[in-house]
Amino acid sequence: MKISGWAAKTKGSLLERFTYERNLSPHELLVDIKFCSLTRGDVRFIDNYWGDIIYPFIPGLEIIGEVKEKGKDVLSIKIGDVVGVGYQVGSCFKCYYCLAGKEQFCLSQKLIPVNEYGGIADSIIVDCRFAFKLPKNLRTPASTPLLCAGLTPFAAIKKAEVKKGMNVAVIGIGSLGHLALQFLNKMDCKVTVFSHSKSKNNLLKKLGANTIISSKNDDDIKKFERKFDFIISTSSASLNWELFIKALKPEGIFCFVGLPPDKVSFKAELLADYAQKKIMGNYIGSRKDMKDMLDFASKHNIQAVVETFPMNQVNQAIEKMKNNIPLFSVVLIND
Amino acid sequence: MKISGWAAKTKGSLLERFTYERNLSPHELLVDIKFCSLTRGDVRFIDNYWGDIIYPFIPGLEIIGEVKEKGKDVLSIKIGDVVGVGYQVGSCFKCYYCLAGKEQFCLSQKLIPVNEYGGIADSIIVDCRFAFKLPKNLRTPASTPLLCAGLTPFAAIKKAEVKKGMNVAVIGIGSLGHLALQFLNKMDCKVTVFSHSKSKNNLLKKLGANTIISSKNDDDIKKFERKFDFIISTSSASLNWELFIKALKPEGIFCFVGLPPDKVSFKAELLADYAQKKIMGNYIGSRKDMKDMLDFASKHNIQAVVETFPMNQVNQAIEKMKNNIPLFSVVLIND
Repeated sequence: MKISGWAAKTKGSLLERFTYERNLSPHELLVDIKFCSLTRGDVRFIDNYWGDIIYPFIPGLEIIGEVKEKGKDVLSIKIGDVVGVGYQVGSCFKCYYCLAGKEQFCLSQKLIPVNEYGGIADSIIVDCRFAFKLPKNLRTPASTPLLCAGLTPFAAIKKAEVKKGMNVAVIGIGSLGHLALQFLNKMDCKVTVFSHSKSKNNLLKKLGANTIISSKNDDDIKKFERKFDFIISTSSASLNWELFIKALKPEGIFCFVGLPPDKVSFKAELLADYAQKKIMGNYIGSRKDMKDMLDFASKHNIQAVVETFPMNQVNQAIEKMKNNIPLFSVVLIND
Repeated sequence: MKISGWAAKTKGSLLERFTYERNLSPHELLVDIKFCSLTRGDVRFIDNYWGDIIYPFIPGLEIIGEVKEKGKDVLSIKIGDVVGVGYQVGSCFKCYYCLAGKEQFCLSQKLIPVNEYGGIADSIIVDCRFAFKLPKNLRTPASTPLLCAGLTPFAAIKKAEVKKGMNVAVIGIGSLGHLALQFLNKMDCKVTVFSHSKSKNNLLKKLGANTIISSKNDDDIKKFERKFDFIISTSSASLNWELFIKALKPEGIFCFVGLPPDKVSFKAELLADYAQKKIMGNYIGSRKDMKDMLDFASKHNIQAVVETFPMNQVNQAIEKMKNNIPLFSVVLIND
């Protein structure tokens, strides 16, 4: 069948209408797209930042839509269901990690928009095993960023075994950070936010920040020595990581979900000095993590703070994002 | 009472006989020293490498001896018991970490030979809570290094939840490394050793190494991409850490117990690229870790490979250690 979307025809170009042909396999769904995020990752993909893009290229990796058709082997999803789709849309289902329910580590995984055309489009065909039925209160534009920007910090928090009452911190408050803040707040943690701008402070307090500290001022960060059980960095800047390692309790965990451009560098004794500290990284989450995240977000009504645009204004949205105007997340809406 | 030991009177000097006065408190033991290790740490302490030494200074932080006197509050240990004493000899027993059985994180902890005169001496007075009754088969010179060089990797392995059948690696084979190798082998892990010298290969195979690789050859290390569940580095050299992070499985853990002189430096995406990897550090172990380690070592008859010297030849032993002659550990014996 023919599918129409918005594609960059060459590196960094404006998006234009583009139609491609795609068959529906027995285990796949045709999803009519209602909402699709425009992420900073999408903008980097358009510019071929990581060098793996083939043009024409349709971005869009956080999608909510309605199932219009389904292949004959699809049993768990009905036509008319509203589903969410994230960054990962395929895996081998045969390797050790797939069998262990950790599909995000599969080396044969498929990703949008790298291996498939993305969601800034009228519709998309996806493997039913990577389409997640959405609870009623999460069928909104503001729920769309949960599907990747929510999943990634949620899976990290789960892996780090963060518990009620813990003293935690979020570094960097963008699309991932403002969702991480809400998850941690609703887990009854005491959340300190390290942010480089003061303009968001009132909103961050509403989202559950107990304390807000400038990430630019080393002296302020130094005051937190041995204070945090868990720190999650969603920042893509290079910061003074040694200060944040010092800010961990003896068994504390620091997690990178945002990736700084420069190498991370620190004295190893900071991990071992009267301590047993850990630094981890996290990459999206498993299908089980996705289900757990959607249940948690639904229960606590956690959604992103979004700026919306009609999908046919996608180029204006890209321009605004390049100028850092949207506070957190951008979602495109199909009429 | 008067206690006689071997002290450096000034920075880097030869050790000489030195006598000090010390009272026995109600919860303390007087231990007649039978064996005391000479560690690389001791040699660095004599040279005031970390800048915290007050002279005259008696080194010696892994001790086996027999209880000769005890304070009136000591209930669990009898006169005549053979006990082991490690690096930590005191903590507040009141803070959160002490109450949680994690005394090694207590900020008021006492260490030999920093806060107390050490074990290269005729005897020592120690808090009974940091003296550990030794199983019969561990009352040997070769058991002495277990008390710190064994405890540190053992506690790290425990914290990292290393399990039977895992694919693991040990970087650096000195005092800590050759004990880490034996622990991991007896836990039924498949152990690869990364070592910079070939001279120890036959002995390493006897101690349980399945594979031995040169840590100098990057191309050899590259072959291990995504292979290890756990890597413990006991090396004090600065290596190509990025290669070892790549050698971890997606959920693998890299642990520093040896501390490299330069900052550790790596791209954060190596922790997060289709993965959820961790880097940790470890500092000695709790009293519970010590008991678990001694039980495990006793059950599997794990001991260090040692070169022994009469204690009055301590200066010759130091000289040999400075010339890197002993293969693994050095133990001084009182006659």
